[in-house]
Amino acid sequence: MVKNRQWRLISFPSGRPEASNWELVETEAPEVAPGHLLVKALYLDVAPYMRGRISPQPNYAAGVGLGEVMVGGAVGRVLESRSPGFAAGDLVVADFAFGWQEYAVLSPGDVRRIDPALAPLPYWLDLFGLNGLTAYFALFDAGAMKAGDTVLISAAAGSVGQIAGQLAKLAGCRAVAVTSSAEKAAWCREAGYDAVIDYRAAADLPAAVAEACPQGVDLFLDNTAGPIHDAAMQNLALDARVVVVGTASLADTFGAPDTGPRFLRQILVARATVCGFLFSDYAARHEAGRARLRRWYEAGRIHSKFDIAEGIASMPDAFLRLLTSRNLGKQLVRLEGD
Amino acid sequence: MVKNRQWRLISFPSGRPEASNWELVETEAPEVAPGHLLVKALYLDVAPYMRGRISPQPNYAAGVGLGEVMVGGAVGRVLESRSPGFAAGDLVVADFAFGWQEYAVLSPGDVRRIDPALAPLPYWLDLFGLNGLTAYFALFDAGAMKAGDTVLISAAAGSVGQIAGQLAKLAGCRAVAVTSSAEKAAWCREAGYDAVIDYRAAADLPAAVAEACPQGVDLFLDNTAGPIHDAAMQNLALDARVVVVGTASLADTFGAPDTGPRFLRQILVARATVCGFLFSDYAARHEAGRARLRRWYEAGRIHSKFDIAEGIASMPDAFLRLLTSRNLGKQLVRLEGD
Repeated sequence: MVKNRQWRLISFPSGRPEASNWELVETEAPEVAPGHLLVKALYLDVAPYMRGRISPQPNYAAGVGLGEVMVGGAVGRVLESRSPGFAAGDLVVADFAFGWQEYAVLSPGDVRRIDPALAPLPYWLDLFGLNGLTAYFALFDAGAMKAGDTVLISAAAGSVGQIAGQLAKLAGCRAVAVTSSAEKAAWCREAGYDAVIDYRAAADLPAAVAEACPQGVDLFLDNTAGPIHDAAMQNLALDARVVVVGTASLADTFGAPDTGPRFLRQILVARATVCGFLFSDYAARHEAGRARLRRWYEAGRIHSKFDIAEGIASMPDAFLRLLTSRNLGKQLVRLEGD
Repeated sequence: MVKNRQWRLISFPSGRPEASNWELVETEAPEVAPGHLLVKALYLDVAPYMRGRISPQPNYAAGVGLGEVMVGGAVGRVLESRSPGFAAGDLVVADFAFGWQEYAVLSPGDVRRIDPALAPLPYWLDLFGLNGLTAYFALFDAGAMKAGDTVLISAAAGSVGQIAGQLAKLAGCRAVAVTSSAEKAAWCREAGYDAVIDYRAAADLPAAVAEACPQGVDLFLDNTAGPIHDAAMQNLALDARVVVVGTASLADTFGAPDTGPRFLRQILVARATVCGFLFSDYAARHEAGRARLRRWYEAGRIHSKFDIAEGIASMPDAFLRLLTSRNLGKQLVRLEGD
């Protein structure tokens, strides 16, 4: 039998993971069930999302249990196929289903065949895998990226960030990197970013973002949460979009009170949208809205309660009543008969 | 000459405003410039947005300067018209341009004629003014409200909230109120809310929201920021929408460090959108995205940098390198030749 070395999770980290959270176990490669494939890994993926899978806290995907093989993707070669769609020798990628191990038996639905003539094998775990598609859809769809945007990208030299920066340039945007070392900053410049912030070297991060983004941040691809998020939020341009792709800086505080940049993890897990709203932005459609409200009002289906004070002299008091929630109904001041 | 009493701002509040921040001044009603109207106020508006206008901090609209008449809307009667579109006796509403005073000279562009036969005068500063349209567009447009949503509304007995609750019911939603007293809670029930939370009486606000919204919160109309926001964010349903309409609980901390529910003010001022993103939500379009990336790759316009460790034994170390930002480029582990 072929020996299969695999990493199993043996304890949940409290705070930052340590190598002792896993153990390397030697076992035998499993039998190939009918309709399945035996795949030998050539490259194993290493990705930030894995941190979220080794926490007992709820996440957007099921976590790894104690004693289970650690989750992860791989590029590999089919050694044995009992599925008509694949043959021994095929090169495949599994985005998530492989695990931290040398061999895996996979269902055809968990893999895609790859073409090594198009790009080297690592690309199938990167540009043509999670990272490329995350950068692509997060910027163009969720972020509605358009030419002329100033696009701020955190973890800019990371797997998603390095692609995102290039996509921003391809789209005619100003791409601004936030990264964590001089070496990464150099790589970001080489990769085409227009401006680069080394956040560990910045004395005043909000000011550094303001300097790198003189027109403000139109689109912020947030890979980290934490102080970089905070600095970006203080430099948003009008109609800015913030796409929360990752919360790496919160990873070691899972389960702790969500202080600092609050609730970004919940926004991510719920794929929620938080947006600002201003009455006057809808000015062109106010009449249409008012007509709709009028129909409901005339039908007796909507009404208001008012809390009306008397006389011009009562204005500040009426306002302070409102600010302290002492009014009951819409607060107004009546002047006629004053 | 007609005497005009008006409230002028004489100091910026630090924290909660006090009546002494304004002084009541008696002056003479101004001359009516050509093309303008002299309007006598019948009702003066009192609204939370006014708090934001008496801070030197940047806001979405210009602030009131010291010595200036306090900003505000009014319903009034035209006393004199030098504009062909209006006549003495017309009833008009000015959403913002009137000020805290008895008489104002207004441009026709600042007022709309109102029909007192349709609804009593206060309605024109409420359902058919800022409050009604804010509730309407915030829920139906920004919030994409649809039948079946659980809609949580803070400041639910307030001017926007009381209308929002009724609109939610009209749209076939479950409307849940958060309000600040037993009396307001009673009014919310009367107004049709399905469930009501008196947040000052709730021992555990997140738990109270969870109980009132057993399927989670699909749409949160956030009028307050603060602890109510925090409790709502811990109960979001998948695909939730959070529309930040007001940040009343932050009003007295303008200019202070934005702790607690961070950056909601910036989201509002920038009308920013913050959304969560997950790779797998786009599964149906992954192939299309990959095809686009492939074209750029084949054209030599995009590439990746990799940081590749060797051998299955290096997996935890490679992952810890990633978590501590020591990798340079996409981290992988190569197994072939191991």
